[in-house]
Amino acid sequence: MIDQRILPGAEQYVTCTDYREVIAAINDLTIRGAPAIGVAAAMGIALGALRIDGDTPESFRIAFEEICRQFAATRPTARNLFWAIERMKRRYESLFVSLPPPLTSANIRQIANNAEPASSFSGGGQSSWTIVGRSVSSDPDHDPWHLLRESLATEAIQICEEDIAINRRLGANGRDLIPDGARILTHCNAGALATAGYGTALGVIRAAFEEGRKIHVYVDETRPVLQGARLTAWELMREKIPCTLITDSMAGFLMQQGKIDLIIVGADRIAANGDTANKIGTYTLAVLARSHRIPFYIAAPLSTIDPALSDGSAIVIEERNPEEVTWVGGVQTAPEGIAVWNPAFDVTPHTLITAIITEAGVLRPPYAEAINHIWPSGSG
Amino acid sequence: MIDQRILPGAEQYVTCTDYREVIAAINDLTIRGAPAIGVAAAMGIALGALRIDGDTPESFRIAFEEICRQFAATRPTARNLFWAIERMKRRYESLFVSLPPPLTSANIRQIANNAEPASSFSGGGQSSWTIVGRSVSSDPDHDPWHLLRESLATEAIQICEEDIAINRRLGANGRDLIPDGARILTHCNAGALATAGYGTALGVIRAAFEEGRKIHVYVDETRPVLQGARLTAWELMREKIPCTLITDSMAGFLMQQGKIDLIIVGADRIAANGDTANKIGTYTLAVLARSHRIPFYIAAPLSTIDPALSDGSAIVIEERNPEEVTWVGGVQTAPEGIAVWNPAFDVTPHTLITAIITEAGVLRPPYAEAINHIWPSGSG
Repeated sequence: MIDQRILPGAEQYVTCTDYREVIAAINDLTIRGAPAIGVAAAMGIALGALRIDGDTPESFRIAFEEICRQFAATRPTARNLFWAIERMKRRYESLFVSLPPPLTSANIRQIANNAEPASSFSGGGQSSWTIVGRSVSSDPDHDPWHLLRESLATEAIQICEEDIAINRRLGANGRDLIPDGARILTHCNAGALATAGYGTALGVIRAAFEEGRKIHVYVDETRPVLQGARLTAWELMREKIPCTLITDSMAGFLMQQGKIDLIIVGADRIAANGDTANKIGTYTLAVLARSHRIPFYIAAPLSTIDPALSDGSAIVIEERNPEEVTWVGGVQTAPEGIAVWNPAFDVTPHTLITAIITEAGVLRPPYAEAINHIWPSGSG
Repeated sequence: MIDQRILPGAEQYVTCTDYREVIAAINDLTIRGAPAIGVAAAMGIALGALRIDGDTPESFRIAFEEICRQFAATRPTARNLFWAIERMKRRYESLFVSLPPPLTSANIRQIANNAEPASSFSGGGQSSWTIVGRSVSSDPDHDPWHLLRESLATEAIQICEEDIAINRRLGANGRDLIPDGARILTHCNAGALATAGYGTALGVIRAAFEEGRKIHVYVDETRPVLQGARLTAWELMREKIPCTLITDSMAGFLMQQGKIDLIIVGADRIAANGDTANKIGTYTLAVLARSHRIPFYIAAPLSTIDPALSDGSAIVIEERNPEEVTWVGGVQTAPEGIAVWNPAFDVTPHTLITAIITEAGVLRPPYAEAINHIWPSGSG
């Protein structure tokens, strides 16, 4: 995975050979963005499963569930993380569920042999994925879990490849919301870096740009971690999409001057009524948008929707290290010992959201109805 | 003056021995804050006048006006700068106006001798001011401009001392707007550092705290220059006023959670109808305050009011160096070559302002009437 902490200064790739390294990469923001975290967790779980040293199905199961538990404990807010873990668990369960306990190595192998063969281990798209350390399963005759491991890896790769396809559909669905000449504001990074490739909010922008529409994107720098300045600006410049960087505090003044036609951002978790958790500062933009009568769009895959939450009040908001606020680029910018509040996300009430762009179409209020109708409840 | 660029990392004082150094200090934000810039300009003009080498009243006048012109060209938005320059010019004119041109050195000296004697050259308060380089006027018998120079220095010192007294009155006028237990949000630095001492918005907070009220101040870090994180946090910690630092993008979420009872900020220029220019991001806070029904107060001396401007639309908004946005603490945080918009201020419409706290009392809407009534038009 590309190291998002040091972009745009350096373009460096990190190779994880142990699932604990993937966990560390999610925790320290080497990889970030709700869909990308989901893909990374799936890949990490597959990587972990490749190395499980269980003698019995029970010990394999315990180790597998422990790996899943560790991924679930990384970051609380992004729905896609839990969605991906659940999907990996379902794949795992699908190989066992029909067997009466206790399982034996022999019948596990039998079940695993019925699973589809593993596809290539490298995903496509902007971010490139490779499951390393396959040597542990290189001798299928001596590894009873061989095809089970392969099957989990296949699922992870599928999640990754699907994500790119989903983003392209989402972009196509949303691009007509962006008129020719539009001046667009975005916050944080909901681009190729935040996903397996193409992006959600930036995917929509990219789709409109690919259609030849003249657009201009204003990029909130997005303190404290500066995903806008470091990542979104970098992506847009690479795509040659005209853009201007501002600090978060300038967005209101831009809108007051009539220089913004629409706002589009990603999402980390969407409740059943449309309330949306996204990067801290999103709620402020939504209030400003309403006050200036500017459309405010969310772009997110269905895997971001959490139909189990009736509204946004129950969304857990991660609070991160105070040093994200008091230090910038290795330089201390605030007095030693100052108290800090550092929530990584906020919740925008559905009443401030003009539409939610998904791969299944553009959802309009009332969202409770639209989500209930469109979200294939219980499925991926 | 204290070097505000390197606070809170280091507490270093800069001594200016030439008025051009004062100009540079205003331009590079060594000194900042509308009232402090006004005081610095007055001091700088006095310093420049100490060194004018004019043989004739005409050449002295030309040099004096050139110095004033250079100060006026430093930063366009803060009204106090122009107010201080005008006051220095009036003092200068008061010594000449009654004489028919052309003036001679002899009658200048005569006029100057009628002016009041210069007071001490060091101001009081938090910031300490000293006019250096007085040796040029140490021999009054051979310097026809001796008392003229002294008189200008006296005026500058008076502006400085008045500023501290004004802030204390302003603080006393505003403190009862801050109830016991109040959770206050402030933006940028309107403290002792932004003035000759005590502060405007922080002066009100300080006055409430000195009365024994339990308060908590949330400090917007205030990108791009981080005056909140670097200066306001530092001042509050020195005064042991409980405070918490947040990024600018977190203010809306705080208000949404009901954790802010009032907002108080300073001002750089106030139009005759109450429209107020202040640090970029202030307008966003005012919109958020309205949306959450939170009182939004401006604290500023009368010298910030510009009665010549009927509304805020004519206020010149300074745009500063893009590198303030793309570099933080010597580290580049955005891609090379990215376009940047960096307005240093925005304008909050009077309709969003609950009250304007001044040394002459708390102004309430309609501000056009209140300002017309209270502002001693044409005087300092």
